[in-house]
Amino acid sequence: MGILKFTVTAKDPGSLARTGLLEVKHGSLETPAFIVVGTRASVKAVDPRELKAMGVQITLANTYHLMLRPGAEAVAEQGGLHSFMGWDGPMVTDSGGFQAFSLGFAIEHGVGKMVKMFPAEGKHDRAPVPQRPKLAKITDEGILFHSHLDASKHMLTPERSIDIQEKLGADIILVLDECTSPLSTYEYTRDSLELSHRWAERSFAAHKTDQALAGIVQGGAYEDLRIHAAKWNAAMPFDSYAIGGSLGKSKDDMWRILEWTNAILPENKPRHLLGIGGVDDVFGAVERGIDMFDCISPTRLARMGIVHIRPESGGNAANKWRIHLNGSVKAEKGPIDPACGCSTCTRFSRAYLRHLLSTGELLGFALTSTHNLYFITKLFEEIRQAIKAGTYQDLKAKWLAG
Amino acid sequence: MGILKFTVTAKDPGSLARTGLLEVKHGSLETPAFIVVGTRASVKAVDPRELKAMGVQITLANTYHLMLRPGAEAVAEQGGLHSFMGWDGPMVTDSGGFQAFSLGFAIEHGVGKMVKMFPAEGKHDRAPVPQRPKLAKITDEGILFHSHLDASKHMLTPERSIDIQEKLGADIILVLDECTSPLSTYEYTRDSLELSHRWAERSFAAHKTDQALAGIVQGGAYEDLRIHAAKWNAAMPFDSYAIGGSLGKSKDDMWRILEWTNAILPENKPRHLLGIGGVDDVFGAVERGIDMFDCISPTRLARMGIVHIRPESGGNAANKWRIHLNGSVKAEKGPIDPACGCSTCTRFSRAYLRHLLSTGELLGFALTSTHNLYFITKLFEEIRQAIKAGTYQDLKAKWLAG
Repeated sequence: MGILKFTVTAKDPGSLARTGLLEVKHGSLETPAFIVVGTRASVKAVDPRELKAMGVQITLANTYHLMLRPGAEAVAEQGGLHSFMGWDGPMVTDSGGFQAFSLGFAIEHGVGKMVKMFPAEGKHDRAPVPQRPKLAKITDEGILFHSHLDASKHMLTPERSIDIQEKLGADIILVLDECTSPLSTYEYTRDSLELSHRWAERSFAAHKTDQALAGIVQGGAYEDLRIHAAKWNAAMPFDSYAIGGSLGKSKDDMWRILEWTNAILPENKPRHLLGIGGVDDVFGAVERGIDMFDCISPTRLARMGIVHIRPESGGNAANKWRIHLNGSVKAEKGPIDPACGCSTCTRFSRAYLRHLLSTGELLGFALTSTHNLYFITKLFEEIRQAIKAGTYQDLKAKWLAG
Repeated sequence: MGILKFTVTAKDPGSLARTGLLEVKHGSLETPAFIVVGTRASVKAVDPRELKAMGVQITLANTYHLMLRPGAEAVAEQGGLHSFMGWDGPMVTDSGGFQAFSLGFAIEHGVGKMVKMFPAEGKHDRAPVPQRPKLAKITDEGILFHSHLDASKHMLTPERSIDIQEKLGADIILVLDECTSPLSTYEYTRDSLELSHRWAERSFAAHKTDQALAGIVQGGAYEDLRIHAAKWNAAMPFDSYAIGGSLGKSKDDMWRILEWTNAILPENKPRHLLGIGGVDDVFGAVERGIDMFDCISPTRLARMGIVHIRPESGGNAANKWRIHLNGSVKAEKGPIDPACGCSTCTRFSRAYLRHLLSTGELLGFALTSTHNLYFITKLFEEIRQAIKAGTYQDLKAKWLAG
């Protein structure tokens, strides 16, 4: 057992939404929490001081990227990820398994975790189009992949993943798993699930430190497989749980998967929905018992000039709480969002940000990324407050209107 | 007369080095001062809060770049440059004249302000190699140039330059001048000087606001022309003075130019050496009576992974107070410079910075730029302290040793 204590502090009477206090080696955080992604040991363009200042509680870095550059040993020599990247708070690393998916199925099937992510909107069911040869191969031993950087060959076994994550030194680490595609057959998904469970056992056996270890529930969109996986994981003495793999072909698929899974996972351990973080996804998942989310979209969208606006400023489900700074922007004189209290909105105009982005000035990326991270961080603060105050449904109605 | 008050506060007994208090519309600063360049209304990759925190006193933005994007009117609509870029302290804009040089002679002659800047080190006297057609043409009316962005035609007259700078709203603005090349003949430089003086008169006549207006001393490396230009400028009621144009073919040429010029410019007005900021240049110019410097090199070098180290950490004239983070770097565990107190060196290792730069992580540019700006800002603080304490020569000896 690693260092992890989870205390449920409040429950929403009308749903499975709950608040919690999660205590890990490098500090504590309140849940539901958004985990800010710093893929290569850096939250892109944003200084860790800024993250602290805006209330970010926890970050996540990627084992796959860091094992290639600079290498786990190099990070360990610098005293681990916390010291390396200047983040002294709670931190998660993933196992590298998702990148096997990205290098494998995502390439071969032309899909994301939900089919609709890759094809054009609304075309959820079109036939998959193989796009490029995949770069990863799954064997019982582990994941054999070619680096996306130089095509060098690497074997990522459960033991190697744990060893790397122990060298990196995050507070919560993940077992190695295979992330299947929404287009994978029942048979493939079932066999993959068993493989993931064997890898999880090997991950558990290899784990030697006081880092918390999270199991991952797989099973695609198949009810019996998800239930089997949830039961299998619940029976293992993991410190924490993550829900991974294909989340189906629609939001409704995702909701069902969460309902099957969270009815089984132990109530007294935190549940992390991997790689999801849209506003509507967050509300739907929180009320189905999810405690943690991670997603790269706040910083990725920001670098594209896509920034979030709150409901008070016109953000809604139809516009996805987004405006495009590079497109036509009204109210050029004001900030991105007059209802936002971030260090970008309180100091800079849309016009200035657009100028920075259109001229390629690097500061622009930092300022828009800061705004989007603040947006999602404050949303989670509001969600926690609402659960405690018994006003979760009101908050949800306010955000999802329109 | 614009808003500018300059008070000499101390003098070095052994040279013309002096400290001063310069008061302008948006605040005051101590001289000698390093002016941090924010070409397109942004000090590349660095948040203005970071500039304030490290003690940066004054910034400079470029009329040429801002007239093209986003346009002076767009900046004025946002309340001027201070509000636009979130810098509420003293600020300078240049006149756009130097870019006419960059687009003209610098392209045609393949040179910089000193010949040695463009060719390989040590080849000061090689024949100039025309490289590309120049993009600017000088007429009596002004500078006709093609935008480097879209080849659109623009005419920058003295009146237009002043109008733009008034819209931008910096504390100190510059007259339009022509910057000649170190390879320009005596006759060309002489005729250009007279043109610059006619433009200066027109700039002066066009100037209507309370911004301080600086004259620019031209004349290349020709003694009689520099003396003539210094006298002409000294007789004009400019608030401040800048020394521009070709600074010759060697450091000794530059020193002579400064000696000719500063013997004539009024002692009670600040003197700005345009576009120069190397450590050895700064010491040589300060002791010849220069009060202000600006240079893009701290941030430009930083983005290339070239960072400064202080004498205590091995920085000297031979290595130009530089190490290359992308090359082989010893003491990987430590910061760039253990003797540096900047927010990068107190938090991050060379190994991390190298990781960020080699993976293209945007944070790397911010952190190295912050370090280099801190380095030069602290150098100027030390110079001011040394002048006041009568230890300027000792400080110079410490820095220029090796």
